[in-house]
Amino acid sequence: MKKTVTQAASRRIVKLKPSALPPDPDKRYDANIDHILRAAASVFAEKSFGLASIRDIAAHARISFPRIYYYLRNKEELLYLISRRAFQELLKRAEEAARKTPDAAARLRQFIGGHLEYHMDNLAEMKVLVREADSLSGRYSADITRLKRDYSRICRKIIEQFAEERGHALDREQSRILTSLLFGAMNWFYTWYEPTRDYEQRARIMDEIFRMVAGSISNR
Amino acid sequence: MKKTVTQAASRRIVKLKPSALPPDPDKRYDANIDHILRAAASVFAEKSFGLASIRDIAAHARISFPRIYYYLRNKEELLYLISRRAFQELLKRAEEAARKTPDAAARLRQFIGGHLEYHMDNLAEMKVLVREADSLSGRYSADITRLKRDYSRICRKIIEQFAEERGHALDREQSRILTSLLFGAMNWFYTWYEPTRDYEQRARIMDEIFRMVAGSISNR
Repeated sequence: MKKTVTQAASRRIVKLKPSALPPDPDKRYDANIDHILRAAASVFAEKSFGLASIRDIAAHARISFPRIYYYLRNKEELLYLISRRAFQELLKRAEEAARKTPDAAARLRQFIGGHLEYHMDNLAEMKVLVREADSLSGRYSADITRLKRDYSRICRKIIEQFAEERGHALDREQSRILTSLLFGAMNWFYTWYEPTRDYEQRARIMDEIFRMVAGSISNR
Repeated sequence: MKKTVTQAASRRIVKLKPSALPPDPDKRYDANIDHILRAAASVFAEKSFGLASIRDIAAHARISFPRIYYYLRNKEELLYLISRRAFQELLKRAEEAARKTPDAAARLRQFIGGHLEYHMDNLAEMKVLVREADSLSGRYSADITRLKRDYSRICRKIIEQFAEERGHALDREQSRILTSLLFGAMNWFYTWYEPTRDYEQRARIMDEIFRMVAGSISNR
């Protein structure tokens, strides 16, 4: 069978990398997991979690069906790992944003920027996170719910600090509602973002989101 | 088998209504379709479109499996009918909002109110609309895309008029981005709305959404 360059390249990630030294087995394992999670996210985004099979994912990742079980136990574990990675990365960015000086406006801007940039760079993952939020169960679900709650709390705190800074302290209900609306505005993004049209607009889009939150707070 | 009151009531809708006059067959047909679409929306919301079967829906609607085919051809037609009804109702409300006097602020408030009220009263349908936006194909998909575009255009027009009224005319990109962000803020709603907690807050939530758009426009 003839292979395209991309196929061959993506196959290489799964096999050993050609190198003078023997490759670090941990690194290779991580690279393979990475590659499989990427493939799974794109299959889930395309077919939905419910309809996708491990066989589809193995085919998309160009890895043999038996071999994929070396890396995971079942389909739900894949969705869990995709979600956990995404929220760990988002949390890392949010924590950086929360430390940002000099003011809460800068923290809010950085929080929005971090979320949107992640979204733009990981459209399949974000689509899966949004659409399959209820597809995990048991411990998997509990663990992701906790990460989400931590993430959302950082955002809410930044919004509260920002409002205080502007002299319009929010009550608990206001900050809860505003945080949820902000996440809506940002998470809807995968439905309308077209890289060819919107990539150049990224600064403007982030600015519009910031303006919505800031405007809503100043107009009290 | 013992039946609960609700089960018996929902069964009555499918069977003939007890009445002195023979029931109008068209009305009965419509009531049955209504009942089936409601059941289907709740099964799709629970299980996802991909994993739900006609058998599940028939069971949920308490209608026999062969009989359900009197009302529909296949599962995709059900999703299409749910989506079409929802957008027709949303469009009706949007057109009313667009005619609202005296000013664009009143129109925008009414548009937001109409969308959110529909959302609150039809949580399963909205969840399905949001999550299964890509699950239709061919003519079904084309028809719903057209309704969505019409709906979104009315919203965008109201936003543009509102901005003009406030002396901050928007360029095409700004009004497109702002419309998409507004839909995001509103459509994310099903993920966090808890009727017991948030029902009393509906006016406040609508007000917060209006404030976001208005604030974003005034702050230019």
